[in-house]
Amino acid sequence: MPHIALPEGLPGILGPMAFRPETAKPLNELAEILLRGPSTLSPADRELIATYVSSENDCFFCQTSHGSVAAYYLGGNEELVLDIKNGFEHTDIPEKLKALLAIAGKVQRSGKAVLPSDIERARQHGATDLEIHDTVLIAAMFCLANRYVDGLGTLAPREVGIYREMGAQIAQHGYSAALQHAAAAERTAA
Amino acid sequence: MPHIALPEGLPGILGPMAFRPETAKPLNELAEILLRGPSTLSPADRELIATYVSSENDCFFCQTSHGSVAAYYLGGNEELVLDIKNGFEHTDIPEKLKALLAIAGKVQRSGKAVLPSDIERARQHGATDLEIHDTVLIAAMFCLANRYVDGLGTLAPREVGIYREMGAQIAQHGYSAALQHAAAAERTAA
Repeated sequence: MPHIALPEGLPGILGPMAFRPETAKPLNELAEILLRGPSTLSPADRELIATYVSSENDCFFCQTSHGSVAAYYLGGNEELVLDIKNGFEHTDIPEKLKALLAIAGKVQRSGKAVLPSDIERARQHGATDLEIHDTVLIAAMFCLANRYVDGLGTLAPREVGIYREMGAQIAQHGYSAALQHAAAAERTAA
Repeated sequence: MPHIALPEGLPGILGPMAFRPETAKPLNELAEILLRGPSTLSPADRELIATYVSSENDCFFCQTSHGSVAAYYLGGNEELVLDIKNGFEHTDIPEKLKALLAIAGKVQRSGKAVLPSDIERARQHGATDLEIHDTVLIAAMFCLANRYVDGLGTLAPREVGIYREMGAQIAQHGYSAALQHAAAAERTAA
């Protein structure tokens, strides 16, 4: 049971967002810009960074929902998403993405853990300042989201099909639309 | 030196915010709503929660700047801000604020660290669901901000007078205005 009385039937972050729409608005805007806005990093790469940080924070809802968005962009490759969570250094992804995931993993532990050598590694593989900035902010944003979701004791369904549908919704229509879709579906079901 | 080429002369989070105004906008909106918007928690209480979490994350810029905002609201009582950072349970603040700071401290470590007993303690001292929600989200937001500031290796001046002026600016005019003020002052100095 969630720690506070949240609107029923909305999993994970969707409950607190429906409870407090004033704060949901800038949170969704931030997610739209960082994960789906114009960028030289692909939407898949950005969702993988979000998924990896959420996995390191042990947040089931966030790692599964954003992992589903990433897998959707990757043509359904859920195995790669799992492999990255289990140890991205041993996967076949580009070296630049590995270096950015390494920075994200440092940010997850502490901002101070990011060393000049981590930045240097990313630069050597072609990362720009804006890509490094966005990687740090995506990782930081998921340190917020994971704590928001778990700190309020929100419910996370275990059926993987729910996340696949959510992932497709988000990939096709964006974060604000996915929240409205889930809230509308819940009102119809109630 | 910051890890990436940020606009010069802007301390802490102001550098990355000037570097990436697209993401600064929702971040400042979130701060305005949570720290200065309509609430049954006083602006001082909310800044104390932000300051405490930033102190636990060992982020010098955030704990000093938000500590200065809190002290401004408290009529200049910098000693109380210091005492709260050093051990809020042993201060004379109201029991409700102690219970909310305890929840914030749990969120700083992990969302999963928040236990039903933490929520129960806050409720016993009169905390509402909305106050608990906002406490969790303020704590989570500063886990973002602290990592954003330190993960990019931003510079933090050591002169306390700079923070007192910044705290007064923010308390009087808000977060977006303080960013514009700092950027304009820097342009004049350059």
